[in-house]
Amino acid sequence: METSQPAAAHVLDTAIALAPDNAGGPGRYLGHTSPAYGNMVGPFGGTIAATLQNAILLHPDKLGDPLSLTVHYAAPIADGQFEVQARPLRTNRTTQHWMVELSQEGQVAAFATAVTAIRRDTWGATDASFPLAPPPSSVAQAPAHPRAAWTGRYEMRFIAGGMGPDQSDASGHPSETRLWIRDQPPRPLDFPALASICDAFFPRIFLRRASWTPASTVSLTTYFHVDAAQLAAQGDAPLLAVARGQHYGKGFFDQNAEIWSAGGVMLAASHQVVYFKE
Amino acid sequence: METSQPAAAHVLDTAIALAPDNAGGPGRYLGHTSPAYGNMVGPFGGTIAATLQNAILLHPDKLGDPLSLTVHYAAPIADGQFEVQARPLRTNRTTQHWMVELSQEGQVAAFATAVTAIRRDTWGATDASFPLAPPPSSVAQAPAHPRAAWTGRYEMRFIAGGMGPDQSDASGHPSETRLWIRDQPPRPLDFPALASICDAFFPRIFLRRASWTPASTVSLTTYFHVDAAQLAAQGDAPLLAVARGQHYGKGFFDQNAEIWSAGGVMLAASHQVVYFKE
Repeated sequence: METSQPAAAHVLDTAIALAPDNAGGPGRYLGHTSPAYGNMVGPFGGTIAATLQNAILLHPDKLGDPLSLTVHYAAPIADGQFEVQARPLRTNRTTQHWMVELSQEGQVAAFATAVTAIRRDTWGATDASFPLAPPPSSVAQAPAHPRAAWTGRYEMRFIAGGMGPDQSDASGHPSETRLWIRDQPPRPLDFPALASICDAFFPRIFLRRASWTPASTVSLTTYFHVDAAQLAAQGDAPLLAVARGQHYGKGFFDQNAEIWSAGGVMLAASHQVVYFKE
Repeated sequence: METSQPAAAHVLDTAIALAPDNAGGPGRYLGHTSPAYGNMVGPFGGTIAATLQNAILLHPDKLGDPLSLTVHYAAPIADGQFEVQARPLRTNRTTQHWMVELSQEGQVAAFATAVTAIRRDTWGATDASFPLAPPPSSVAQAPAHPRAAWTGRYEMRFIAGGMGPDQSDASGHPSETRLWIRDQPPRPLDFPALASICDAFFPRIFLRRASWTPASTVSLTTYFHVDAAQLAAQGDAPLLAVARGQHYGKGFFDQNAEIWSAGGVMLAASHQVVYFKE
């Protein structure tokens, strides 16, 4: 009997894989950071968000599709193994509220709260403006940043603002980056992949001040505006992503982001608060 | 011996008051909803956010000032008593990550995650645009909404967009509201009061569709851009507040908000996802 060879797992799926820890009861898993998504220090936060999202998606009691995901990066995550515990805190008829904790050495290093919901067809509209962008094929792909392995896991084509500091950039949008982005190699879009892309922007302060300064995300919230079927329909097409800073001061700043389909559907809106050193 | 008569507590302080539940250990409190801040159904969500914030501020182990607050409105909150449990999940040198749960009848009805942080003097800047606004004294104060008691606890002077649906509004900002707001009676600003004000906008869908439709906040995240001393300096002056919708569809939408001092300092940025019926 011939069997078709299973496709090799995508590098993102390997990075966010969770093995059920049956001794720990439902919602308990073991995971491992992935060198393929390494950041300048420790793992890329987007992959951690995707892993916490994945813990909910794998839970046998999950209701509906992801609606919101708030991730707290509570402490540095060491490269290596971690434990994840996902718990539904409240289940309603059409919404469910979650708590997910990632621990290393018995201490919480990251955690997330989330909502999953059964989406229904309703009235819809978009007040935010679809960003101006030339087609992806007309924008050059950026090289990966040599000190951040995760940047090589995304195909990024920058339209405005760069990946990092650029003193030659006088576009008049000091903290804004606009780019086409998708997984590299291409991978069909799903909620963990989208959650990760929402964190695939360097801290806005790098652009705003055109210099590198120690900075790291403290907490990030993403709202998903589509259901699983709409995401699946997106396939592996490039997404239009925009991020901009709002206010910087007293050691922290906030930045928001929007992720759009090429056809003008807002797939997700995200907001994060970031520590910076000085 | 004469003692000065203590000033009567402000109605907000009464609404968010928490009594330590010593039998439950540190961070355990009893609270009660306040008819003064009633909403069309149940309590006003802003006061719930302020109460959860207060549980952190009252905790003996608290480090620094509030930086972020994410509130999940997990189920309808019944008028009456509730229990609150606040726990630091991770304490670092300058940041602390929190979980706070509000329960009724042994079930979680709302919860929050939060970050407190020691703020330091650093470089600062604001990329968001300070909204155009005439001085508060030149804008008429709106009457309270008869079906939402909490609206009477705020002095609200609407510059653009109204409190609720208005078919005569053709300002060209369909989901935007811009107003001067402060507690009524006036009260010195602090973090619970600011957290509450961040939720003091009717759901944007009321304005966007110029009609009432069942809608309620599912989750709300606020980032605070100032420390306690900067808030105290604000006194009881009116704040300039702006909210606008982003995307509506499949039963949910998101709206963001900014709260500014009259002098142009962004005090807080907020983002929430809201359920709507159809």
